[in-house]
Amino acid sequence: MNFIKKLDNIMQKNKSLLCIGLDPDPLLLPENVTALEFNMAIIDTTADLVCAYKPNFAFYEAMGIAGMDTLKKTIEFIPRDVPVIGDAKRGDIGNTAKAYAKAIFDYLECDATTVNPYLGFDSIEPFINYKEKGVFILCRTSNAGAVDFQSLPCNVPPVPLHLFEIVARKAKEWNKNGNIGLVVGATYPEELNLIRRNYPEMLLLVPGVGAQGGDLVTVIRHGIDAGKKGIIINSSRQILYASKGKDFADAARRTANKLKEQINLFRNAG
Amino acid sequence: MNFIKKLDNIMQKNKSLLCIGLDPDPLLLPENVTALEFNMAIIDTTADLVCAYKPNFAFYEAMGIAGMDTLKKTIEFIPRDVPVIGDAKRGDIGNTAKAYAKAIFDYLECDATTVNPYLGFDSIEPFINYKEKGVFILCRTSNAGAVDFQSLPCNVPPVPLHLFEIVARKAKEWNKNGNIGLVVGATYPEELNLIRRNYPEMLLLVPGVGAQGGDLVTVIRHGIDAGKKGIIINSSRQILYASKGKDFADAARRTANKLKEQINLFRNAG
Repeated sequence: MNFIKKLDNIMQKNKSLLCIGLDPDPLLLPENVTALEFNMAIIDTTADLVCAYKPNFAFYEAMGIAGMDTLKKTIEFIPRDVPVIGDAKRGDIGNTAKAYAKAIFDYLECDATTVNPYLGFDSIEPFINYKEKGVFILCRTSNAGAVDFQSLPCNVPPVPLHLFEIVARKAKEWNKNGNIGLVVGATYPEELNLIRRNYPEMLLLVPGVGAQGGDLVTVIRHGIDAGKKGIIINSSRQILYASKGKDFADAARRTANKLKEQINLFRNAG
Repeated sequence: MNFIKKLDNIMQKNKSLLCIGLDPDPLLLPENVTALEFNMAIIDTTADLVCAYKPNFAFYEAMGIAGMDTLKKTIEFIPRDVPVIGDAKRGDIGNTAKAYAKAIFDYLECDATTVNPYLGFDSIEPFINYKEKGVFILCRTSNAGAVDFQSLPCNVPPVPLHLFEIVARKAKEWNKNGNIGLVVGATYPEELNLIRRNYPEMLLLVPGVGAQGGDLVTVIRHGIDAGKKGIIINSSRQILYASKGKDFADAARRTANKLKEQINLFRNAG
């Protein structure tokens, strides 16, 4: 099913804007639990609380071929009505981007992915050509280094803009299939506000709440659209590692539920 | 062994600045030859002609877990004195970049990799912290879309610079371990010239000759350093698919040898 439709349905069904980042870190996993068992337990206890899952490929690749097997099986285990955002942040020349899109959409069967804009349109086109899939372009990321390039002021007459604003503008221009969204970190609320004001209808994927320090109230006030949605709020470590003991899945559920409820509270208050 | 040292040694031993991109495309492989067999045959017939091999991960990921196995075995098959540049173009926040570095350097045992600068310093730091490994930062890529963002004029007093020039400047600033290089496409000779003039000692990885249309004489005139090296010239499709028949490996050798000799001719003439 079309990613946007699937997302809409599950946001309504689960009354949730929360996405859980499935990033199994061997150093943080509970004892004697494999990454796949861990993910399956997290999915089992949280699937009715989320609007999406977002596995970041790095954590699987670091485990070698076994990790890729875990990634594949994790995606297969996710209930069909919950969209999967493959967080791969790929960016390469057209011919190569096509191979990446094939890996993420055809082989792994993700519903959406994240892409890096540095190589421009032909690096993103093969992804957006999958009309049923979602493509989140990195705009303003949640990390400290984001300022190094993303915030550079660029001369684009008539009005100078920051690089990340030009990325957003291009994303809108490229959005012929209606399947493009933007990644804007929770840790930069002013930039989030700016993007939402200028692109009232753009779907936003917002990482960085919780462990990375983004403030939830501000994120929601600045990020939701006119319909009080249009935003996917991701949390990874805060939920996954709420407990390092045998009760990790229940602790994850409690934390996820609290976060989901808080989001809804602020969302309806806003 | 240290990547820079290994590269230096093989450049001397093989008298070559040529890198072959190992990008097996199922649609272009000879009949009844697997990607691994293909790579092994190419490596067997060209290992004395190159200064490096550069597998682009996209082509392996598109083949799923079997592809990752092929990538791992391909890297293992490359003679130990020929450096392997894992062309992955990763870019993610610090914690995640660390996992990617682990995948590329520890698990796959590549000697070097390519990284995307859009997320800034903390996305690159985990890679350059591997002091023995090489890290090529995307600066000016070889594709048409490169102009979308990389060529934007940025206000950085006292003198305005293009985004890719700022990336180059930052790369130099970050190069405390002496293991950073830049990716500059053969298809943009003026930009290549500019980078070489401003960064006379920076190691350059130059894709885009051959199938992508970059002109060899210009690339060498503009790209080599004072010691007539400092540049790795990559060719993929032109060599790999020189013949689609049973003689593919011999055809690849002939094409690679011709390219290597041409490079040396222009290099010594320049």
